[in-house]
Amino acid sequence: MLASIDLDRLIADTELEMLGVIARAEDERTRELYTMVRYHMGLDSDAPRGKRMRPLIGLLAYQSIAGDHAAALPGAAAVEMGHNFSLVHDDIEDNGTERRHRPALWTVWGTAQAINTGDALFTLSRMALYRLQEEGFDDARILRLMRLYDETCLALCEGQFMDIWTSEHDEWHSVDYYFDLIGRKTASLIAGSAEAGAVLATDDEAVIGAYRRFGWALGLAFQLNDDLLGIWGDEAATGKETSDIVTRKKTLPLIYALAESTGGDRQRLQAILAQSQTEPTPDEVEEVLGILERVGAREYTREAARGYRDQALAELASVGTVERESMERLADVVRSVIRA
Amino acid sequence: MLASIDLDRLIADTELEMLGVIARAEDERTRELYTMVRYHMGLDSDAPRGKRMRPLIGLLAYQSIAGDHAAALPGAAAVEMGHNFSLVHDDIEDNGTERRHRPALWTVWGTAQAINTGDALFTLSRMALYRLQEEGFDDARILRLMRLYDETCLALCEGQFMDIWTSEHDEWHSVDYYFDLIGRKTASLIAGSAEAGAVLATDDEAVIGAYRRFGWALGLAFQLNDDLLGIWGDEAATGKETSDIVTRKKTLPLIYALAESTGGDRQRLQAILAQSQTEPTPDEVEEVLGILERVGAREYTREAARGYRDQALAELASVGTVERESMERLADVVRSVIRA
Repeated sequence: MLASIDLDRLIADTELEMLGVIARAEDERTRELYTMVRYHMGLDSDAPRGKRMRPLIGLLAYQSIAGDHAAALPGAAAVEMGHNFSLVHDDIEDNGTERRHRPALWTVWGTAQAINTGDALFTLSRMALYRLQEEGFDDARILRLMRLYDETCLALCEGQFMDIWTSEHDEWHSVDYYFDLIGRKTASLIAGSAEAGAVLATDDEAVIGAYRRFGWALGLAFQLNDDLLGIWGDEAATGKETSDIVTRKKTLPLIYALAESTGGDRQRLQAILAQSQTEPTPDEVEEVLGILERVGAREYTREAARGYRDQALAELASVGTVERESMERLADVVRSVIRA
Repeated sequence: MLASIDLDRLIADTELEMLGVIARAEDERTRELYTMVRYHMGLDSDAPRGKRMRPLIGLLAYQSIAGDHAAALPGAAAVEMGHNFSLVHDDIEDNGTERRHRPALWTVWGTAQAINTGDALFTLSRMALYRLQEEGFDDARILRLMRLYDETCLALCEGQFMDIWTSEHDEWHSVDYYFDLIGRKTASLIAGSAEAGAVLATDDEAVIGAYRRFGWALGLAFQLNDDLLGIWGDEAATGKETSDIVTRKKTLPLIYALAESTGGDRQRLQAILAQSQTEPTPDEVEEVLGILERVGAREYTREAARGYRDQALAELASVGTVERESMERLADVVRSVIRA
C-alpha cells in the first residue's frame, strides 16, 4: 500500500515539473500548440496517462543513491517528454489512430500540426534539463547528462528507422538484427533513464554502469514481454485486440520461427506472412500458432524475457545502496512490467 | 573575387564538419538513414545545396570578433542541420514536393521515414555542439549556447504552429500577428546564428546584443524580400513559379491589403481569397495586383524590408571589431539576400 502511494507521488511530481516546463513556454498566440502537448501527454485533465515507467525508473535510481527524488525531477520530465515526442511521431508513421484509449493527436489536429507538435515536445524535453542548474548540479554534470540524452534520442531514431524499414519490406531479418533494433528503439531510453538517475547522484562509474545495464536488461525484457502478449496475451488470444500474427508484426516469436523452422512449416510460414497475401485467415492464424509451438518460439521468447528480467534484478542486487526502499520499488517495477 | 573564395571556404569547412557528425553516428545497419540525411542536406555528391546563410552568418560573426572561424564550426554545423531538420518536416507539412531542385525527401523514401529522418537530423544538430568541448570552450559557455539553440528551436516550432494554423483557416490575422509569426519562424534562427557566433567569441553583452539585433533585422528583411518576390519577382510575375496570390499565401502584402483596403476593393479581395473558392483565375490575379498597388501594399512591404536591412547594417556598424573583412562579408550577405 505504502509502495503504491510512493510511486503515485513520484508521478504527480513529474507531471507538475512537466506542466511547469510547458507553462514557461506558453503564451497567448501559442496556447493551442501547448494544448496539443498537454492532450497528448494526458496532462489536460484526469485523462488516462501512460505508466510513466521511464521517469519512475530515473527517479528511483537517483533516490536509491541520493536518498530523495526531488532534485532529479527535471531529468524525469525530460525523459518522459522525450518518450512522448517519439510516440506522437510513431502514431503518424505507423498510422496508429488510438493512444492510451483516446484518439491519437494527428487524428484530431491533422498530420501537419501533429508533426510540428512532436518537434515542439522534443525541444521542450531538452529545455526541461536546464532546471538542473537551479537544483545546484554543476555544468559538467549537466552537459554529461545532455550528451547521454542526445545519444539516447539518436539511438531511438535509429531503432525507429530499422523498424519502419522492416515493416515496409518483405525481407525478414535475423534474430540478431531484431535484438539490435529493440535495443535502440526500446532498451536505450530505459537504460538512459536509469543511467541518468545514477549520473546525477554519484561519480562512481561502476555504479553508473550497473544502473545502465539494469535499465538495458529491463528494456529488453519489457519488449519481449510485449511480443509475447501480442500473440498469446488474453486480448490477442480472444480477438479483443488484433494479434501480431494478423498484422504480420515482425516480433521475436515470428522471426525466431522463420529462422528455425524447416521443410513444410517454413514454407507455410513464409507464404502466410508474405505481404503480397491478403490478411491471414483465422485458420491460417491457427496454423501459424501451431508452427510457433512446434519450433519452440514461445518458449524461446519466454526464456529470453525471463533471462533479461533476472539480469536486471541481479544488476540491482549488485549495487550497494543507501536507500533500501527505492531499490525495492525498482525491483517492483521490473516484476510488474514482466509477467511472462 | 577574394570575397567569394572566402565564403566558399567557410561553406566547405561547415560541410566537412557536418559530414564528420554524420560519420561518427553511422554504422552498417543505419547506413540508409544517414544516406537520407546526406541527400536532404545536399551532402551526397555535387548536389545543389542551400545558400548556407545561417552558418555563414554565425561563422562571420565569430570571426569578426575572434579573428578566425575554425573554432566555431561545430556551432555552424548545428545551426545548418537544425535548419534542415525543419525543412524536412516543413515539406511534409506543406505538401512540398521539391526542395532545391530535387524531389523532397518524403517523396523518395515515404512520409514515415522522412518524419523520422527529420528527428534524427534534429538530434544530430545537437550532437554537433559537443565538439565545442574539443575546441576548448568551457562548459558554462557551451551550456549557454545550447540553451540559446533550444530556445531558438522552440520559437521555430511556435512560428510553424502559427503558420500551419493560418494556412488551414480562412481567418486572416493582423499585420502585428504576421510579424510575430515570421519573427519566430524565420528571424529567430538567423538572430540565433549571429548571437551564437558572438557568444562564443566574447563576454561583452552589449556586443552580443548588437549581433542578435543584427540577425533579427536581417531575418525579417529576408522574409519580406521573399514575400515581395512571391508576388512581383520575375518568376512569379512571368508564371514560371506559382504566384503567392494563386496559392493565397498569407504574406505581408496581402495581409496589409486586407487590413487597409476599404469598400469594393476589400470585398473583392475577401471574395477572391476565400478558400471556399476555386483557385483565382488570371483575371482575378490581375485584379488583386491592382488592389495591392492602389492600397500601397507593395510600397509598404518594400519600405519595411529596406528598413530592416538598414537596421541590420546599422547594428553591424555599431560594433567595434578587430576583423574588418568579416564585417564587410556580413554586410555583403545582407545586401545579397535583400534586393528589394
